[in-house]
Amino acid sequence: MGERSAALLATRSSLWARRVVLNGLALLALCLALPTPAAADVPRVLPSWRDGPTREAILHFIDNASDPASLDFIPAVERVAVFDHDGTLCPEQPLYLQLAYAIDRVRTMAAENPQWQTRQPFKAVLEGDTDALLDNGPTGWSGLMSETHAGMTVEQFSSKATDWLAVARDPRFSRPYTELAYQPMRELMDYLRAKGFRVYIVSAGSIEFLRVLSESMYGVPREQVIGPTADLDFVLTEDGRAELVRRKGLRYEVGPGVKAATIYKAIGRRPVMVVGNADADLAMLQWVGSSLGPHLSLLVHHTDAVREWAYDRDTKVGRLDRALLEAGLRAWPVVDIARDWSRVFAFEPLPADPAAQ
Amino acid sequence: MGERSAALLATRSSLWARRVVLNGLALLALCLALPTPAAADVPRVLPSWRDGPTREAILHFIDNASDPASLDFIPAVERVAVFDHDGTLCPEQPLYLQLAYAIDRVRTMAAENPQWQTRQPFKAVLEGDTDALLDNGPTGWSGLMSETHAGMTVEQFSSKATDWLAVARDPRFSRPYTELAYQPMRELMDYLRAKGFRVYIVSAGSIEFLRVLSESMYGVPREQVIGPTADLDFVLTEDGRAELVRRKGLRYEVGPGVKAATIYKAIGRRPVMVVGNADADLAMLQWVGSSLGPHLSLLVHHTDAVREWAYDRDTKVGRLDRALLEAGLRAWPVVDIARDWSRVFAFEPLPADPAAQ
Repeated sequence: MGERSAALLATRSSLWARRVVLNGLALLALCLALPTPAAADVPRVLPSWRDGPTREAILHFIDNASDPASLDFIPAVERVAVFDHDGTLCPEQPLYLQLAYAIDRVRTMAAENPQWQTRQPFKAVLEGDTDALLDNGPTGWSGLMSETHAGMTVEQFSSKATDWLAVARDPRFSRPYTELAYQPMRELMDYLRAKGFRVYIVSAGSIEFLRVLSESMYGVPREQVIGPTADLDFVLTEDGRAELVRRKGLRYEVGPGVKAATIYKAIGRRPVMVVGNADADLAMLQWVGSSLGPHLSLLVHHTDAVREWAYDRDTKVGRLDRALLEAGLRAWPVVDIARDWSRVFAFEPLPADPAAQ
Repeated sequence: MGERSAALLATRSSLWARRVVLNGLALLALCLALPTPAAADVPRVLPSWRDGPTREAILHFIDNASDPASLDFIPAVERVAVFDHDGTLCPEQPLYLQLAYAIDRVRTMAAENPQWQTRQPFKAVLEGDTDALLDNGPTGWSGLMSETHAGMTVEQFSSKATDWLAVARDPRFSRPYTELAYQPMRELMDYLRAKGFRVYIVSAGSIEFLRVLSESMYGVPREQVIGPTADLDFVLTEDGRAELVRRKGLRYEVGPGVKAATIYKAIGRRPVMVVGNADADLAMLQWVGSSLGPHLSLLVHHTDAVREWAYDRDTKVGRLDRALLEAGLRAWPVVDIARDWSRVFAFEPLPADPAAQ
């Protein structure tokens, strides 16, 4: 080997070595940086929310709650957010989803139950008189669930409800109910989880039904859906298997404060964030709003008859009157659907410039 | 530069390059491998459990449940393990921990409540007659909790219970109750969590009390403690604050299957693993034992009078008879404390060779 070729080799070797080092460092950097992409690549959070005071108030609360340097930091164990279901996470018009299921069950089971033809609230269902049904109020129509969901194991109930959800369609949008989650709320729940919050759903209705859809529709595991449940009988079958069988009768409590009490019984703490849309949610909004530490009470107002529904005082489902007044007095942020959401459902296209839309 | 020195340089360069490559690869490997340290450094899991069929059965279940390649793999969302509390996670002798607290409250509040001197179960408490108290059974002594824990906000209750736990001592071990978690069970809960399980505690007693200690004592957040709770009143104070106030009366249900039903109502699924220690846990062990998929029903038998307590049939607290027979028939693993645990509490030293100990 001549001097030049040896020197060339040395140069090549050291060039190669440099390249290896650089590549190694680049790989290492890539490897270390994987969890946090470069700032320029970060998509706008809450993309279906328009810019404005509501989105700002939400981000301000969440970002501070999860920032240890903030005065409004909240320890991870206390970061619990609770969402009402009907009207807060999906449409509740013309009927609560659980009620739509119970009505369908009544129709399916009517032939075997001739006594229902003359008995309320079954009579109203079989005559298609939804108004009369809603006039009976929740204590009235909860009987539908109690009767049609009883006498089967808890697993059989889940299986029947799953089958129904696969074929049932919302009467207005002609889509599976499971496609009607409010997209901005799904984004909000995702963002909360990314910031270390545990996200719960609360309902005054039959939560066994909601638990069938909560995981796929909202990413909320069944055990984070809270509310009243059917009483259960423990049964040992002839072949020695132990099963839980749904009993008739549902402990359905009404009255102010029921949802707040339900939440506390289920999770043992006052949430730091709660979202609702009706007067039935007022007490839990007040309860979280009375917390001494950082907190957020958020109220949804249905104002968009074109893309969803518009209602408040004059409705039999999800009446909103006092809670809206209270939100004004207490300065709780109000989600005005027409104003604050650039899209309502995932099947709508995302506007090109959602901030300005 | 002479030919030899150039060649030497080339050799050095390529050696250096090789070293850089190797170092780079090593760093990269280290970086990628961070979550799983080298096999030689892995400490023995469940260090306070002695080798034997019980430890093997537990590890076999958990490792398969979390291994996607195993036929007994369980999807993450279904990986829920539920532990009974008293006698399963800490001693229940001479009295359930929640009951010890209620008794102390009765003594503290006796002066303001002279009527208790002649009224059961208060009379038994004030006369120090624990036997008479236990003869009344849970429906009897739950009245103690109902009366002494009522009329305060839920936060005031937690605060009082926290204060008590800071000073109260177990009568036998003369240590804070919070130091009496069974160390092998803490290790088991940690291992389950590391393998993607969500760990719950179930109790037939007052869970508001358990929730005060569950996070620090077991790493179980409050919302993962399930069981009966006091009824709550929603109260708006004069200055406009919303509070939840404990009502007298506790919905305390007894009977077979109550814990299984409580679990289902709270979490909406049949757990894949359940741990208990008494006949009161039999139904939930049967229920999980009847699951069609992979599952583990585990029973604790108190056999160690030297380090803890030894009891089964002849006790007023935590009676174990039928469940032990059933464990034999169904081949459920039984934790024999004297045989299976190399130490019971964290304050005992860990044996040098725990596997052989």
